[in-house]
Amino acid sequence: MLFTKKILVFSLAILMFGVYPQTANAQQTLNDVKEERGLTDADVLAATKTFMPRGGRDEYFGFIGTGNSGTMAVYGIPSMRIYKYVGVFSPEPWQGYGFDDESTLMLKKGSLDNRLYKYGDMRYPALAETNGKYNGMYLFYSDGANSRIALLGLDDFETKQVLMHPLFINAYPGVAVTENTEYVIQTSQYPTPWDGLAADVNADYDSKFKSGITFWQFTDEESEAGTGHHIGRMIKEESFTLELPPYTLDFFDAGRMDSYGYVVGLASKGGNNYIYVVDFNTLSTLGTKPVNDFAVVSIEDALAANAVAMIELPAPAKSVKVNPDGKYFLTAGDESFVFDFAKVKDAFANKTYSGKADGRIPVMDIAVVKHGSIILGDGVMDVVFEYRPGVVYSSVFNHKKIIRWNYETLEKEDELVLTFKPGQLMVPQGLSAEPHSNYLTVVDKEGLYENFANIGPVRPSFQHLIDISTDEMNDIYTMSIPQANLYGSVAVLRSTIKPIIRYPLGTNTRTGEISIYKTVAGQEKIEREGNRVHIFGTMIRSHITPEIVEVNEGDVVTFHLTNLERAEDETHGFTVDTYGVHGSFEPGKTASLTFTANRPGIFPYYCTEFCSALHLEMEGILLIKPKGWKGEKGEVEIKLTDEELAGYKINYEDKLEVIDATQDVINSVVTFLKENNYQDYPYVNALVEDAFDQLGKAATSKENHEKYAAEGKWKDAFLWAEQYWQYQVKTADAGLRAKKLLQEKISE
Amino acid sequence: MLFTKKILVFSLAILMFGVYPQTANAQQTLNDVKEERGLTDADVLAATKTFMPRGGRDEYFGFIGTGNSGTMAVYGIPSMRIYKYVGVFSPEPWQGYGFDDESTLMLKKGSLDNRLYKYGDMRYPALAETNGKYNGMYLFYSDGANSRIALLGLDDFETKQVLMHPLFINAYPGVAVTENTEYVIQTSQYPTPWDGLAADVNADYDSKFKSGITFWQFTDEESEAGTGHHIGRMIKEESFTLELPPYTLDFFDAGRMDSYGYVVGLASKGGNNYIYVVDFNTLSTLGTKPVNDFAVVSIEDALAANAVAMIELPAPAKSVKVNPDGKYFLTAGDESFVFDFAKVKDAFANKTYSGKADGRIPVMDIAVVKHGSIILGDGVMDVVFEYRPGVVYSSVFNHKKIIRWNYETLEKEDELVLTFKPGQLMVPQGLSAEPHSNYLTVVDKEGLYENFANIGPVRPSFQHLIDISTDEMNDIYTMSIPQANLYGSVAVLRSTIKPIIRYPLGTNTRTGEISIYKTVAGQEKIEREGNRVHIFGTMIRSHITPEIVEVNEGDVVTFHLTNLERAEDETHGFTVDTYGVHGSFEPGKTASLTFTANRPGIFPYYCTEFCSALHLEMEGILLIKPKGWKGEKGEVEIKLTDEELAGYKINYEDKLEVIDATQDVINSVVTFLKENNYQDYPYVNALVEDAFDQLGKAATSKENHEKYAAEGKWKDAFLWAEQYWQYQVKTADAGLRAKKLLQEKISE
Repeated sequence: MLFTKKILVFSLAILMFGVYPQTANAQQTLNDVKEERGLTDADVLAATKTFMPRGGRDEYFGFIGTGNSGTMAVYGIPSMRIYKYVGVFSPEPWQGYGFDDESTLMLKKGSLDNRLYKYGDMRYPALAETNGKYNGMYLFYSDGANSRIALLGLDDFETKQVLMHPLFINAYPGVAVTENTEYVIQTSQYPTPWDGLAADVNADYDSKFKSGITFWQFTDEESEAGTGHHIGRMIKEESFTLELPPYTLDFFDAGRMDSYGYVVGLASKGGNNYIYVVDFNTLSTLGTKPVNDFAVVSIEDALAANAVAMIELPAPAKSVKVNPDGKYFLTAGDESFVFDFAKVKDAFANKTYSGKADGRIPVMDIAVVKHGSIILGDGVMDVVFEYRPGVVYSSVFNHKKIIRWNYETLEKEDELVLTFKPGQLMVPQGLSAEPHSNYLTVVDKEGLYENFANIGPVRPSFQHLIDISTDEMNDIYTMSIPQANLYGSVAVLRSTIKPIIRYPLGTNTRTGEISIYKTVAGQEKIEREGNRVHIFGTMIRSHITPEIVEVNEGDVVTFHLTNLERAEDETHGFTVDTYGVHGSFEPGKTASLTFTANRPGIFPYYCTEFCSALHLEMEGILLIKPKGWKGEKGEVEIKLTDEELAGYKINYEDKLEVIDATQDVINSVVTFLKENNYQDYPYVNALVEDAFDQLGKAATSKENHEKYAAEGKWKDAFLWAEQYWQYQVKTADAGLRAKKLLQEKISE
Repeated sequence: MLFTKKILVFSLAILMFGVYPQTANAQQTLNDVKEERGLTDADVLAATKTFMPRGGRDEYFGFIGTGNSGTMAVYGIPSMRIYKYVGVFSPEPWQGYGFDDESTLMLKKGSLDNRLYKYGDMRYPALAETNGKYNGMYLFYSDGANSRIALLGLDDFETKQVLMHPLFINAYPGVAVTENTEYVIQTSQYPTPWDGLAADVNADYDSKFKSGITFWQFTDEESEAGTGHHIGRMIKEESFTLELPPYTLDFFDAGRMDSYGYVVGLASKGGNNYIYVVDFNTLSTLGTKPVNDFAVVSIEDALAANAVAMIELPAPAKSVKVNPDGKYFLTAGDESFVFDFAKVKDAFANKTYSGKADGRIPVMDIAVVKHGSIILGDGVMDVVFEYRPGVVYSSVFNHKKIIRWNYETLEKEDELVLTFKPGQLMVPQGLSAEPHSNYLTVVDKEGLYENFANIGPVRPSFQHLIDISTDEMNDIYTMSIPQANLYGSVAVLRSTIKPIIRYPLGTNTRTGEISIYKTVAGQEKIEREGNRVHIFGTMIRSHITPEIVEVNEGDVVTFHLTNLERAEDETHGFTVDTYGVHGSFEPGKTASLTFTANRPGIFPYYCTEFCSALHLEMEGILLIKPKGWKGEKGEVEIKLTDEELAGYKINYEDKLEVIDATQDVINSVVTFLKENNYQDYPYVNALVEDAFDQLGKAATSKENHEKYAAEGKWKDAFLWAEQYWQYQVKTADAGLRAKKLLQEKISE
């Protein structure tokens, strides 16, 4: 164009609106942009370290517990882009979690009273481990508010199991796992009685209020479906709880390698602060008694077996973590202690105790079991490891600092001064035996106006990304985490996780098995027994089959729907208007939606997820016939005028031409692929498989459009031709992507 | 430090784990980082255009409807950082939306059957306007799935009203407003009968199925609380619906200025495609009849008054929008039409009709009312305006292009070729009379593995930011939008919105009025009448008052809680374990949580939002006494051992020293502020007010800790001293921020 837009727009805007338009400068050079936006060289460097172009890959996946939202946030490091919120302890409509029968059953089965709990309080997750290393298969959360524990599968990022604790009324909202995920450990937070009865808060406190540490046994088996898919579950019957006196319990961690089987955690009571040390290897040999049908090791038995001790701390600590090789455990506190597991084991073995806590639990003298300590400042909140032996980072809340120090030499190495009070820290791979050392995240609780745009009284959580890959620590990104009270998180190397793209057709995603309600194209049906109606339906661009359903007022109705798509990212939603019936169906998934048809009338049902240009056509009608209604059974076809029919005929004929042209493209792509041995390249092969899969589905659409055309049913003919073309387009699209990739591979 | 870390860490990592650590290079120069991360110069420029350092401010707030999540996402442009999800049509635990009595009452009152609907289908929001310009006060959404309409207040970004449509079973999930927000317009999408009865889908379709356009009257008044706060509401009794034959309705828009009072929208029936044109000015003079207690203008009356016409389109369109000055309206379609409102008005006035749609609605010939048309390619999805007269952007889905063209000259200006199929477009201020021209966002529905990391079968929505501030369009950011099916959005200049930081003390945030349950410090109480128990409580760091509540099994219990905080971002959460009782309390907010105490036992209640270092101390105990229980009434104080008491005494004395030191800091700040006339600087003044407000609250804590110390109750003395110090710290903190700002202001 010939004009200088900057000047032109300025004049025009004044002319038109009498206002100065927002920056309309020619932002062409880096320096121009820097200057205009008031950025420093450090800002530009930080921007470059975190910017993620389309096609780029984050190095790590981070997982956040969003507090009382009850969902998990999945984000990428270093882009700090949030990819997903996954319903864990709260119903979540986007994925139909707590809406479809399968997820609702899972949630209710895990509760003690068949209730659907609606929120949670989840903070510190734990990733499953093999030999102390993250295996990328599972993730666990504890719900403090409703005393539940959850298992998520990382093949599809879905919640697979939620169990309510049979004893605790309140749980600590964090978990830890043993080094081969033999057990998932959960503790109580605030003490309560376990018998479900009331107690006098004063007189009964020591006798009736209890705390506990629970070892949930975990097993992982390959699915019987033969897909190689793994199904992990916590087994309540094989799990047990260690009973403790009424301590308020806080952060804890599990030993590994040399300290395998030990659990260390923070406990307080009446102004005294402790670390509890529990020897699981001994505990697991002891007898249990059932309380609320759950196995409990009594504190008396544990003490008699010398399996529990306390280390008294001079002041409260905020965190306690086991180091990567399991030789030490460290606290975060105004005096931060480094404890030596070897010394703790000696103290156990020789019963080197200096007194008793609560009149009965042996206390180890801090001087006997510590390696040393360091004073880093006021309000030390957290400590995290990196891969260099001895090197850790601590956040010092009141001094607005992150300090790098060495827990072997007990010397400070470096510090980063921040503009905010730092909270919880996280290093990718940091709670495993293999911490990495590129990045450190730090929670910034201060959503103050001076730092962020005001968005009303309630603010998101913020977390900063610190580049620790060089000697100098650098704060390079401030991330906003909406709908969350962020405390802790974990992150794993992205490539450790092997997510699937689609489910085997007909999968009940909560159990990992093929659903008995799986329905394939052409097998759709409606079955009735008394007032119980089952609809076996399918969804594929751009049809929900069946398209009309008639039931009687008072019927109990279930839509069992299968998404037949095999293409990537081709989720269909499903809702019945005003009926609270709602689900999300990813490619291959089968789920069921049950409701009582207690209000008569006409209720459209439709796809709620934009799926193609004909998304609006994915609609059907539910007719709920009132008691005593005399109407005729509706025909599926809506009567059309001659003019309308003629219109559809033209549309149909136009579409046939487009179909021919599209087929030419497909043919040329197929020729290229075959000539170039596409099957030698796995990802290309997967794309081609996807493309052929589309073609396979297309046959029925073709038969249908030809059949309806022959019958002069031009609307149906057009819609099926449109659908056939959709398959073609997707086939061509997948094929062209495969071709492009193949060309790249060949030229490599 | 002396060693070269790069080399050291490499060796150590191999030694320790036998693995090559993740990139541990010295990423010091821009070029190093560029090369390592494989970025181009264009990437670095794009990064620099969107990077937002702490303290930076986005130019625009964008608002997204998240589809079936039923929540609104608020994000910043150009940082593309999501700040908030706000519960609109779905319960949302993070903010206690649909959990506390106030929001639950609002949601149920708006429904027709007192039900709490659990999800929505919300896509295209509309911002409130004054003289056709966004006024930054309100935002509206339509829920397609459950036929509701919602009003959000932008002073606190909360949902203020949700109404269920008395006629529609299914609504189009978009809204439009008239130029002074006199009316909020909502339409049906799929036709259904309006009488709530069944109908034969075939025989009754034309006689019983209906569509409609609803004009919700909107009023905006200043709150009686005298805070200057505005309360806007839709008035159902003053609203009405225009009845239409059973057309499937799609995107629509409202006229402005010259075309004020017209509504244009997409309609289809039996393969025919139309734009409906409705003349509201005439409609509003017509009589109505009630259907389901809602005023309806019959199609017969509307036709008799010449207030409705159709323009027949040769092919389906995907969007229709009125241009900034209200002279034209444009469609997005394979042939995109520009219609001239002056010609439409003439056609109405002279009844220049070429036929009838559905046998009765006058049809305007496209040739008579169009200004012109342009063919841009296959699958044109959307069209948006910028501030230069005539300039628009269209997304061409199948050709992966955004085309800039001129709707006056009907000429193409420029195009941007993308790597994905573009969907809906949005320009900040774009649906107002004053569109801006820095940025364009475009929906990218293709969450394919080749472009993004695989995160399982279900993917987020993506949207790209296009820099349109220069002659060349540039794709500068790819944003992930989790938990959303993104279709449309709107964005407003950030400074147009004036969000509050805190509420007037005791605010019922849903009504904007001061709650009758407002409770101030010292006025906490428990009232009982029969089995009805009201707890009037307060929350402030680090106490929930009362700390023990005793009720009887079967009591109906309400916690009415007021957050006494005046500090910024000092939200407290509240939950009663395993009881489904949960709320979020921003500074100043009063909300109520009602439940039936149907399970006896001890249930801790606590703050679920990290609020200070003593967050864990914000705990209380609810004792639900079983029927026939003989326990003593619990004392509030838990019995302590002498040793524990002595420990607290030391803690208390230490704290007193800290308090003295903190007071010195406060005194010096106060002196500086006074000497430098802080009250002359509004924002400084607000910070100082905040600081003094803290001090005001502190008096009671001081009295308490001194009283308990005198009584030898060292635990209480310590906790109250701790709380006094919390006030001091916050006072000092606010004061120091005020001082810093004042220093900056003085030096300006």
